[in-house]
Amino acid sequence: MRQLCKGNVAVIKGAILAGCRAYYGYPITPASEVAEAAALYLPQVGGTFLQAESEVAAINMVYGAAAAGVRVMTASSGPGVSLMQEGMSYLAGAELPCVIVDVVRAGPGLGNIAPEQSDYFAMVKGGGHGNYRNIVLAPASVQEMADLSMLAFDLADKYRNPAVLLADGFIGQMMEPVDLEYRELSAPPKPWAVQGTAETRQNLITSIFLEPDQLEEHQRKMEAKYIRIQNQEIRHELYQADDADVLLVGYGIVSRVLRSTVEEARREGLRAGLFRPITVWPFPSKVLAEAAAHVQKVLVVELSNGQMIEDVRLALDGKVPVEFYGRVGGNVPSVEEVHSELVARTAELV
Amino acid sequence: MRQLCKGNVAVIKGAILAGCRAYYGYPITPASEVAEAAALYLPQVGGTFLQAESEVAAINMVYGAAAAGVRVMTASSGPGVSLMQEGMSYLAGAELPCVIVDVVRAGPGLGNIAPEQSDYFAMVKGGGHGNYRNIVLAPASVQEMADLSMLAFDLADKYRNPAVLLADGFIGQMMEPVDLEYRELSAPPKPWAVQGTAETRQNLITSIFLEPDQLEEHQRKMEAKYIRIQNQEIRHELYQADDADVLLVGYGIVSRVLRSTVEEARREGLRAGLFRPITVWPFPSKVLAEAAAHVQKVLVVELSNGQMIEDVRLALDGKVPVEFYGRVGGNVPSVEEVHSELVARTAELV
Amino acid sequence: MRQLCKGNVAVIKGAILAGCRAYYGYPITPASEVAEAAALYLPQVGGTFLQAESEVAAINMVYGAAAAGVRVMTASSGPGVSLMQEGMSYLAGAELPCVIVDVVRAGPGLGNIAPEQSDYFAMVKGGGHGNYRNIVLAPASVQEMADLSMLAFDLADKYRNPAVLLADGFIGQMMEPVDLEYRELSAPPKPWAVQGTAETRQNLITSIFLEPDQLEEHQRKMEAKYIRIQNQEIRHELYQADDADVLLVGYGIVSRVLRSTVEEARREGLRAGLFRPITVWPFPSKVLAEAAAHVQKVLVVELSNGQMIEDVRLALDGKVPVEFYGRVGGNVPSVEEVHSELVARTAELV
Amino acid sequence: MRQLCKGNVAVIKGAILAGCRAYYGYPITPASEVAEAAALYLPQVGGTFLQAESEVAAINMVYGAAAAGVRVMTASSGPGVSLMQEGMSYLAGAELPCVIVDVVRAGPGLGNIAPEQSDYFAMVKGGGHGNYRNIVLAPASVQEMADLSMLAFDLADKYRNPAVLLADGFIGQMMEPVDLEYRELSAPPKPWAVQGTAETRQNLITSIFLEPDQLEEHQRKMEAKYIRIQNQEIRHELYQADDADVLLVGYGIVSRVLRSTVEEARREGLRAGLFRPITVWPFPSKVLAEAAAHVQKVLVVELSNGQMIEDVRLALDGKVPVEFYGRVGGNVPSVEEVHSELVARTAELV
Repeated sequence: MRQLCKGNVAVIKGAILAGCRAYYGYPITPASEVAEAAALYLPQVGGTFLQAESEVAAINMVYGAAAAGVRVMTASSGPGVSLMQEGMSYLAGAELPCVIVDVVRAGPGLGNIAPEQSDYFAMVKGGGHGNYRNIVLAPASVQEMADLSMLAFDLADKYRNPAVLLADGFIGQMMEPVDLEYRELSAPPKPWAVQGTAETRQNLITSIFLEPDQLEEHQRKMEAKYIRIQNQEIRHELYQADDADVLLVGYGIVSRVLRSTVEEARREGLRAGLFRPITVWPFPSKVLAEAAAHVQKVLVVELSNGQMIEDVRLALDGKVPVEFYGRVGGNVPSVEEVHSELVARTAELV
Repeated sequence: MRQLCKGNVAVIKGAILAGCRAYYGYPITPASEVAEAAALYLPQVGGTFLQAESEVAAINMVYGAAAAGVRVMTASSGPGVSLMQEGMSYLAGAELPCVIVDVVRAGPGLGNIAPEQSDYFAMVKGGGHGNYRNIVLAPASVQEMADLSMLAFDLADKYRNPAVLLADGFIGQMMEPVDLEYRELSAPPKPWAVQGTAETRQNLITSIFLEPDQLEEHQRKMEAKYIRIQNQEIRHELYQADDADVLLVGYGIVSRVLRSTVEEARREGLRAGLFRPITVWPFPSKVLAEAAAHVQKVLVVELSNGQMIEDVRLALDGKVPVEFYGRVGGNVPSVEEVHSELVARTAELV
Repeated sequence: MRQLCKGNVAVIKGAILAGCRAYYGYPITPASEVAEAAALYLPQVGGTFLQAESEVAAINMVYGAAAAGVRVMTASSGPGVSLMQEGMSYLAGAELPCVIVDVVRAGPGLGNIAPEQSDYFAMVKGGGHGNYRNIVLAPASVQEMADLSMLAFDLADKYRNPAVLLADGFIGQMMEPVDLEYRELSAPPKPWAVQGTAETRQNLITSIFLEPDQLEEHQRKMEAKYIRIQNQEIRHELYQADDADVLLVGYGIVSRVLRSTVEEARREGLRAGLFRPITVWPFPSKVLAEAAAHVQKVLVVELSNGQMIEDVRLALDGKVPVEFYGRVGGNVPSVEEVHSELVARTAELV
Repeated sequence: MRQLCKGNVAVIKGAILAGCRAYYGYPITPASEVAEAAALYLPQVGGTFLQAESEVAAINMVYGAAAAGVRVMTASSGPGVSLMQEGMSYLAGAELPCVIVDVVRAGPGLGNIAPEQSDYFAMVKGGGHGNYRNIVLAPASVQEMADLSMLAFDLADKYRNPAVLLADGFIGQMMEPVDLEYRELSAPPKPWAVQGTAETRQNLITSIFLEPDQLEEHQRKMEAKYIRIQNQEIRHELYQADDADVLLVGYGIVSRVLRSTVEEARREGLRAGLFRPITVWPFPSKVLAEAAAHVQKVLVVELSNGQMIEDVRLALDGKVPVEFYGRVGGNVPSVEEVHSELVARTAELV
């Protein structure tokens, strides 16, 4: 079914198609329409929507519902997801599947309500009590808000791990046509969940392991899982990268600016290409290294002061020069702006 | 005055010598003695100790006191500092000086109360709403708990930025002799603070900048400050690194194991050296690159699943092979254990 | 359907038969089984159970669900209902129907978990921001836990006002046979509710009326409603009161002790009778005055330091001497104990 | 020292003169200037002011400071004191002295910010987990805001019990000349407090008494204390009551309207008198009964729907007819208005 839809609404429609039946959250611009759509649509499918007292309360309700085996989600923006860091660490530590949508606004602190990509570190490196990983997906269109929402639920369940949709104010607020198809609900059985039945009574969902050896064993098991995810779940997009001399790297809304920049650059004789990570954790390090093997230079563009660039540099490990161009505060660079940056930095390549 | 003292107590004694007069916190093992010492000593110097309702409340009280120009601190451990991430981002965004002590315990989630270094990402990369930096100091002794506590207050005020003491359960809990000297209180004047006076009435402490250009300008100013800090405030320690063939890198309690490992290795004919970052942000990238310029291999040891190693790899940029050895869950490797790891990985160097 | 059932479970079964479909609460002894039963049964009828972050959060969720037109309830005990006083005042002020179960424990403060009747003032006089009334029903058996639960929902909806079940640890914890009949769900239409539809979009649920005249008018309307309730909804029980020389007055578990005391007294030649208020607000003042018109003395027995006695004295207005016997701390007087009190105070009547 | 002062400021000046050195609160109209004055003046005498996260947090901080033996206070209005009911019950149960100022606004719920007397039940009957009493003082002038503030601290310490100043928006907001005298600080020694010293280490401040007999004994001790307070601490004011045929009864701001009404009535030939309770708990029942012994009628005037009238009726016990006139919503009756009510109800007396 094709429809015109806001990103913040598409993410809920995707979630419901994926079998999500519970939403706990607290509204914040520019994510508030996610809650609004959840409040509207979840009761229609017999699900629960609840506006919690705070983000701290919301994420702990997510923990509870996830522990009961329900597909559950929340959404917020920078200040709110900061408050959820404790809960996210608990969810990861207890190996509970859930989906968290971060419609990123400009930081730090309250910042403003315009789009940014400043939560990359907080979501990808993990800002809660450590030694865990979030699966992080970065949609670049309203269609992907729906599609990656569904994928996020599937990955979360498959690996029993929180999955984050790292969107931004642009992707959340803009409207585009979306194709939504009914799909067979296929959440896997969850024999580990606590479901109020006699059989599940002895199940224990916890992140406490008081004995160091026991906790180390738990973490080693989690690490093995993270390696499986890194091996199996990489998603990325390449555009005109085969013969590129310079590779632009960006995710989310930025990748759309970069795609046009690639076209503009090629019109002017510079063989530019685009690498877009769709999963930012696991970061597509190997495919990026391959894609960049023959280029002269990599230019990372972010709506931040330089965060993903660390993962790009770690992937390339000194083999290709990596440069950075960033805008912050809610400013998004235009194609012209990035193009002239690119021209200035690649005079020798043309 | 020389005295035998627990790390968690020394950090408060240092703070009081540095002029700290307010502490807001919520107890958590293994950081609880910090609160206990604050409750005991702060009132004796006319200061305020308050146990807040939660870590969320505590960090916002820190914000308030910092805004009033008072030298103020809090302390917690993994789950608690996770809850403080929103507040820490606000403090950084509003350019407020304060000191946050993280006596790291094993994660993720509740984990256990044994030592780990799992909060490196959360403190060094920043787990709150993004585009900010904490100054992060990593003490390796009880003496440094006191000394770096004082330094943290000075740096926080000098740069109007939160400073974190990234300790761990070992450093916090163990007792060692400490030299504490009375020092002239020298907090700088804070004309920007709101102090209930007519002159400071118009001062505005905020992290909100609604106009993108205004917020971008604010962030550019903050970035310039971060660059100054990176240029001026690097602290590190080298041990037998001059002629080393292999460089061990570790911070905090781990560095003390590595120092003994260096000695053990040299006794057995392997020229090992130690690089210990004292500031983990700013990370001593340049001095590490110089120290590692002539070595064959770098071995990073952490009580984590591999976090600081990213900064080591970014510093070395592919020029030297970097390997990792980590223990988690509260297990700390012995000298013998690290030494045999080292031997196994450097057979070709001897 | 006849079944053996705990009072704390019967109250939920009655609620569900009455169409209750949402429960928000936080567990506390001796009310915890109410939450447990709600968690078990509500999802089975498509309802929502949620354990909130705190009693403050729970009562505000009750406000939200009530505003949406859902039959909703919560339960707690003394410390918890104290925390709900703000919310209860808001519910009353916004004229929202809901049911609150107070399984009273011994006070003040934390007290202990044994039964008492110490919350009479807090529920009957109202401990929140004032000038409102709760409808308060006092069950004296497990059957009444179910029956008055249903009645409470009906009265709450009929008058758009919170209704309280004032039970106690005994009534909540004991098991008795209960008859439960399926009944036609008959919640009245709620055109005033906000239900996410176009027609209800303009509905405003609020307790704020900024203009004094407007608020006074609102309160006058509420007072008129309270008078209607006082005229129409009195419930009480009389036992051997017709020819009584002394009238025992007690509610809840105490009334069962008093009924046996009446029998014991009559065996020994003293014409005692029992008056049991079932509604404690509205208090059955007129019927009590009639029942006591011909007695020589009234003895009020409470598990408190004397609270309902004020309403008894107000009802009798000096026409009959009113005495008091109370036990507290979780102690419940035996029949022998009350009987010997009665004998000592009525020597002149035999 | 004579000065022009707002009631909300005078209450803090009185508190400081009484040795209050800690204030924890959360602002709410019309009590916010109490917090503002506390923030300004307490630090000047070495005291602590702290704006807590919520009223729940504030009252629990009051508990903590009171347990440490510090003279401590908070202030709020209807919605806020409702949230404090749990804490107030704990303070009473643990026999902790403190002062709580309630600058009453119109209710129920949010109501509005205009004056009312709707919190009478909540403060006088007690809206927390029950079987306890607050000492409640009702100031009728700015001078009394200061004087009764001092008295409240003295009574709280003398009886180890919370004391409430039940003011209203008028008394809080208006300015009048106040005489403030330095007075010798005379807080009694508190050997029961927990003060971080070796001697007080074994002191236990608690409201939990798990054994029913133990809790009953604790409550009996508290009841004995309440009887002492009722015998020793009654305060009231009589005005032209000696030869009165009709007695007006009112407290706080209302009493000032009634005093003028008495004068107006007497000018017109009706012998009216005024009875003003200054302590509303303990309520001056005996002196009121004496003062009303010879009158034909009592008229209670309140800014409520009729709350104190219950205590008046209980005091008079049917011996004199008691009538009621109330205004709510923030409306305060004028002298003319009360006078014409009085005339209409006393035609037979002139």
